[in-house]
Amino acid sequence: MHIALYQCLPRPLDVAGNLQRLEEQARAAKADLLVCPEMFLTGYNIGLQAASRLAEPADGPSMQRIAQMAREHDIAILYGYPERGADGQLYNSAQLVDRTGRPLLNYRKTHLFGALDRSMFSAGAEHCPVVELQGWKLGVLICYDLEFAENARQLALAGAQLIVVPTANMQPFEFIADVTVRSRAFENHCYVAYANYCGVEGEIHYCGHSSVADPLGHVSGQGQLAEGLVTATLDSSVASAARHHNDYLTDRRTNL
Amino acid sequence: MHIALYQCLPRPLDVAGNLQRLEEQARAAKADLLVCPEMFLTGYNIGLQAASRLAEPADGPSMQRIAQMAREHDIAILYGYPERGADGQLYNSAQLVDRTGRPLLNYRKTHLFGALDRSMFSAGAEHCPVVELQGWKLGVLICYDLEFAENARQLALAGAQLIVVPTANMQPFEFIADVTVRSRAFENHCYVAYANYCGVEGEIHYCGHSSVADPLGHVSGQGQLAEGLVTATLDSSVASAARHHNDYLTDRRTNL
Repeated sequence: MHIALYQCLPRPLDVAGNLQRLEEQARAAKADLLVCPEMFLTGYNIGLQAASRLAEPADGPSMQRIAQMAREHDIAILYGYPERGADGQLYNSAQLVDRTGRPLLNYRKTHLFGALDRSMFSAGAEHCPVVELQGWKLGVLICYDLEFAENARQLALAGAQLIVVPTANMQPFEFIADVTVRSRAFENHCYVAYANYCGVEGEIHYCGHSSVADPLGHVSGQGQLAEGLVTATLDSSVASAARHHNDYLTDRRTNL
Repeated sequence: MHIALYQCLPRPLDVAGNLQRLEEQARAAKADLLVCPEMFLTGYNIGLQAASRLAEPADGPSMQRIAQMAREHDIAILYGYPERGADGQLYNSAQLVDRTGRPLLNYRKTHLFGALDRSMFSAGAEHCPVVELQGWKLGVLICYDLEFAENARQLALAGAQLIVVPTANMQPFEFIADVTVRSRAFENHCYVAYANYCGVEGEIHYCGHSSVADPLGHVSGQGQLAEGLVTATLDSSVASAARHHNDYLTDRRTNL
């Protein structure tokens, strides 16, 4: 599977503009899966009022438009957006549509990051399901979720071979992008794809460094600071090789 | 607290020689705590027969000798050794004696590494206790234990500010020394001190890279390949700073 991460400057409050540039990337990416950062549809650092005003249900008009792009350009798309739940709550969500435009999963961030997230969102109440995309089992975590080893482990135990992470990670937290991403991939024998913003949004300075880490800890795209696609090709034999010597999922001692 | 890791060449089957060089290091270290690699007393890659022959109870003659060194040189010492349990089983253990020669903890490796460990040892049945040494709460993991995020997390939740890891880590697993050690420190807001061998023991090529990672992910001693002491000074304000923005121990969602 060919994966492309769209590391981009934030374009806050401009849903139409974001949909337009997403379509440009979907056309250009030459990948099976295109991944955008957290809250890509509206920007992330937009405050409660704007997030509430721009929120959509999971099957809202933006999803319909993105499904159309996916079909037209024959590419699966994972994007972050503010979701208005049927319960009236606002969630920090990510949705995956496959290349036929079918929604495969919608995940609500379970671990909210400090005041910034908590001023806008309710926390999701459920783990992300593991779904299959072109023969790969994948799950989603959003930004701060990944920093808890428990969350990546839960997905790996549920069978995920790929964990996709839309994020809005900022200075001075480069450590997450550079070290934690690789550690999670290695310790769970899976790929981790981490799609971040670069540039500035309000007082936030995003740190870029979007990357795809493989199960042996090797990285594509490490250190990338500018806007652009970070690409990688996933190889299922790498995960098998990683599990050959030390199978962490089997060697865990759950009785301790 | 000043800590010194004794990264050394293995000296298999030579308990007297190992005790002698340990005393030289205890005299020279100018630290509060001296940490030796896994199975330092006998060497690690020695096979079941030798391990069984050289095994001692936790309060055996080598411990008595090491307690004497600790008193004489006013330094706490953590060392790995093959333990003969009261149950007759053989364990891959690490023991800590304080500067007065008092045994503070004895831990039996819970996660055995492949055929090498399993051909010699029974797995420990209990988590390491967290004990206090000069105002620092610390716990011990041994080598492969650290590769499971659950184990470091368990110690951090039990209050550990420092996780000390005697190891016998080999090529091609440098990733653990270089990335996993830092990730565990950062994700648990604690120090991780990782004391490895360098050089060759039988077919094993140890990878060195002993280091002390702080709670912000910074490292002392990274990339060290030769025999020698890797030193670091622990600062409790660094852990507080790490927890200030994102307190992973508080933000975990244990109800999920």
